[in-house]
Amino acid sequence: MRRFLIVGHRASTDPEFSLDDLAGGAGRMDILLNAANAALHLAHGLRRDVEVGLSLLGPPDPPRLVRFEGFRLRNFQPDIRSNAALVRLALKDASRVERETSPGVFGSKTGFEEALDRLGPAFVYLREGGKDIRDAILPADATFVLSDSQDLTAAEERCLVARGALATGLGPMPLHTDHAITLVHNELDRRNV
Amino acid sequence: MRRFLIVGHRASTDPEFSLDDLAGGAGRMDILLNAANAALHLAHGLRRDVEVGLSLLGPPDPPRLVRFEGFRLRNFQPDIRSNAALVRLALKDASRVERETSPGVFGSKTGFEEALDRLGPAFVYLREGGKDIRDAILPADATFVLSDSQDLTAAEERCLVARGALATGLGPMPLHTDHAITLVHNELDRRNV
Repeated sequence: MRRFLIVGHRASTDPEFSLDDLAGGAGRMDILLNAANAALHLAHGLRRDVEVGLSLLGPPDPPRLVRFEGFRLRNFQPDIRSNAALVRLALKDASRVERETSPGVFGSKTGFEEALDRLGPAFVYLREGGKDIRDAILPADATFVLSDSQDLTAAEERCLVARGALATGLGPMPLHTDHAITLVHNELDRRNV
Repeated sequence: MRRFLIVGHRASTDPEFSLDDLAGGAGRMDILLNAANAALHLAHGLRRDVEVGLSLLGPPDPPRLVRFEGFRLRNFQPDIRSNAALVRLALKDASRVERETSPGVFGSKTGFEEALDRLGPAFVYLREGGKDIRDAILPADATFVLSDSQDLTAAEERCLVARGALATGLGPMPLHTDHAITLVHNELDRRNV
């Protein structure tokens, strides 16, 4: 199983966020949805062995966790606008108990640290300056943690350090979140893990 | 300079294609625009040393070539819907002589083979089963050629073979076009070419 947790510091927690303004009004929800696409889509079909958590920390009612389980998903599209509608549905109920709001899509009122513990068990923190992934010994069943267009906060980084996360880099250039996920998948595909 | 040519076999050549139906009515224009994003965007800013050609071969008035020059672009966004508007503008004039319709965006009535010759000089054809890019000696200033969700036609493949294109693969899994471009960039970034 491969797991990705993507942190959206400004990502809207309003179940009525506009599908026509994902980059603006919805707080760079486009970054999170492009990342989920990179994590879950192959050329033909879905990666069934992938789990994606979106940590939504923007107004009006943070924190929220929206989780996608590849092997259960049925309505997940290459088009991020359609998937944004799945996220809206998952935001409707603000319960701390997780609910499946569409096949393979789960929503709950869960913060970043609790999201780490729900995904786990080992962590890889993708950031510039980390040990090159091509040379890294990656833990099995790791959760890869990425941020949106902002860096992780110091507090978030401390949560990762406390869990022994391996800081890993992907090459010399700073990349978009979805591109980083593509590179992780390629490395793991090549290792056949 | 890095160059990418992406072939959209069904991509609309109607300057009024709908911005709200890029995946459907516009003939998988979303694939071409996501590919252009992967080619041109870094985390912060654009890759100025990149040129992208979109070969649009769908109805009603094919063929068309829309070309983006990274070092001249001014209005290119992470949001593909905005960039789709730039493509529409480039489709307005069906002249065989190329025109710059917005800074760094050029449109002309140009077919696949002529597009190859305009980009050139050397070609890398990205396809499953090609020689692994990590082991390949890549020609300098190559144009990387990719298809949309359909394979290149036999006639298109012959054009590439005639130009000595190097068939190159990216790993064991079939990938989306934009993910393939991300992997090419990473390999070239690592080689610092």
